[in-house]
Amino acid sequence: METLPTIADIKKAAKRIKPYIHRTPVLSSTGINELCGGEIFFKCENLQKVGAFKARGAANAVFSLSEEEASAGVATHSSGNHAAALALAARSRGIKSYIVMPENSPQVKKTAVAGYGAEISYCAPTLKAREAGLEEVIKKTGAVFIHPYNDARIIAGQGTAALELLDEVCQLDIVMTPVGGGGLTSGTAIAVKALSPFTQMIAAEPENADDAYRSLQEGKIMPPLPPNTIADGLRTALGTLTFAVIQKHVNAIVTVSEQSIIDAMRLLWERMKIIIEPSSAVPLAAVLSGKMDVKRKRIGIILSGGNVDMDNLPWSK
Amino acid sequence: METLPTIADIKKAAKRIKPYIHRTPVLSSTGINELCGGEIFFKCENLQKVGAFKARGAANAVFSLSEEEASAGVATHSSGNHAAALALAARSRGIKSYIVMPENSPQVKKTAVAGYGAEISYCAPTLKAREAGLEEVIKKTGAVFIHPYNDARIIAGQGTAALELLDEVCQLDIVMTPVGGGGLTSGTAIAVKALSPFTQMIAAEPENADDAYRSLQEGKIMPPLPPNTIADGLRTALGTLTFAVIQKHVNAIVTVSEQSIIDAMRLLWERMKIIIEPSSAVPLAAVLSGKMDVKRKRIGIILSGGNVDMDNLPWSK
Repeated sequence: METLPTIADIKKAAKRIKPYIHRTPVLSSTGINELCGGEIFFKCENLQKVGAFKARGAANAVFSLSEEEASAGVATHSSGNHAAALALAARSRGIKSYIVMPENSPQVKKTAVAGYGAEISYCAPTLKAREAGLEEVIKKTGAVFIHPYNDARIIAGQGTAALELLDEVCQLDIVMTPVGGGGLTSGTAIAVKALSPFTQMIAAEPENADDAYRSLQEGKIMPPLPPNTIADGLRTALGTLTFAVIQKHVNAIVTVSEQSIIDAMRLLWERMKIIIEPSSAVPLAAVLSGKMDVKRKRIGIILSGGNVDMDNLPWSK
Repeated sequence: METLPTIADIKKAAKRIKPYIHRTPVLSSTGINELCGGEIFFKCENLQKVGAFKARGAANAVFSLSEEEASAGVATHSSGNHAAALALAARSRGIKSYIVMPENSPQVKKTAVAGYGAEISYCAPTLKAREAGLEEVIKKTGAVFIHPYNDARIIAGQGTAALELLDEVCQLDIVMTPVGGGGLTSGTAIAVKALSPFTQMIAAEPENADDAYRSLQEGKIMPPLPPNTIADGLRTALGTLTFAVIQKHVNAIVTVSEQSIIDAMRLLWERMKIIIEPSSAVPLAAVLSGKMDVKRKRIGIILSGGNVDMDNLPWSK
């Protein structure tokens, strides 16, 4: 098995990607603090380039490649934020990117990825078709495959958000992320446990996509149930690397209901005037659920992204 | 006539209000820069306490009062952000606030103002009834009236946002604000012309509420037309003080259409993942209108606020 990334890898990643990403602000809200009884510090990766933390991992992976590796470009299959992030990172390095997207991807995502200069191939909307499409592209172009999360360079890159958070806010009792494939959670967990060992690392997950929770319980990677959550970024299964880190470093996974995700999302929009996608609201939903002891605690939450279809908001349905 | 505030007053205000307000971030977007051909630095007062720059002026006014003046509390009539800002500032100082609100104010605004501990009196929704209601409250309580914009302390307080912007971003070719009553515009203009005299100070206004534009043309304060703009923060007339500053320091006022305000608002939501109210979108609408020379220019825009009814977005009608 590939070696797990370390805090040294995360620090190297931070230096490597600095010119290509935003240092995002850490914001807080008196109103939300009063509501929960703790003090929350939101690390705003929704304000990151491409609107998600994924810009960090993709930049680290792309700029980690040797000249020779990079020369044929990079490839992935994704309909989401990783595709845009990889395309942007490739453009920043001046190399090609090849993205295999399901043909039913929303037009806005196709446009965004194309806007970063990626070469898109469309496939049927199944995992099998995506993997076959990717294999074909790689055979044809020699591009390097960059997995969206089960890759040590990606994990190290995602961990740089926590590095900035811990640099800016001291003595956090808890740090939280949402958990999907586990790239953000595992990168964050490595940073937190290395730099602030007494801080609890807690992941949050929709009840309707609680495969990470079940994986921790069972001690092996469990497949996600048929996706039935508004938190569309959290529908993927863990990878071998991310699961290994999560087993080692994550203190708990808290699951939350769909309605609580929508309520937390709207609360954050209204009180903090920032746009987050449903996946990003999952940790705040956990804090407000009553399932966690947050009174007088200092809590860091990484807001993972802000890519939302403005014509289709959950409360306007 | 009362003396106009100076840069020294703005610097004093900045020190005075520092414990009671957020230092808001300055954000930018590669995508929006590519669209307009210039480089825009957004000073995010939508992320300010109470969701608007008004927190600054109100804090400066309230903390400028002597113990004796403050002892009977402060009062204003407002249905908008100034009411919430004044109530919050009064609570921060531990004094009373009395707000006269039109009885048809949205419930969300009533709740917000009450939440900051203000004593609310309701009146009929006319300027006359508001003024009469205010007079009565002041007679009864002895509270000090704090005007929403035509007050040197308020203007100095609003100018502190530009102070922070100029501290963080150098060599701006243009600084822009929306213009309503003129508190933000005049405070900003004083700061800009004192600290960066070669920077152009440009205000932006809806075509459908172009009273500031007409006032500059005519050389006297013109009343606003019957309000017919989505930018509800910009429906007020200038005051004597704000008009005097604007005449002296503002290089131009650019007017924009209603559709362009909605488009700029949505663009900012989608690209920058922050929530701004329609009034805040007016300067960006001006930049994108083609009426200004912005190519390769460095432009600071103060985003005035982010208080929006999430159930009633302009593009979901």
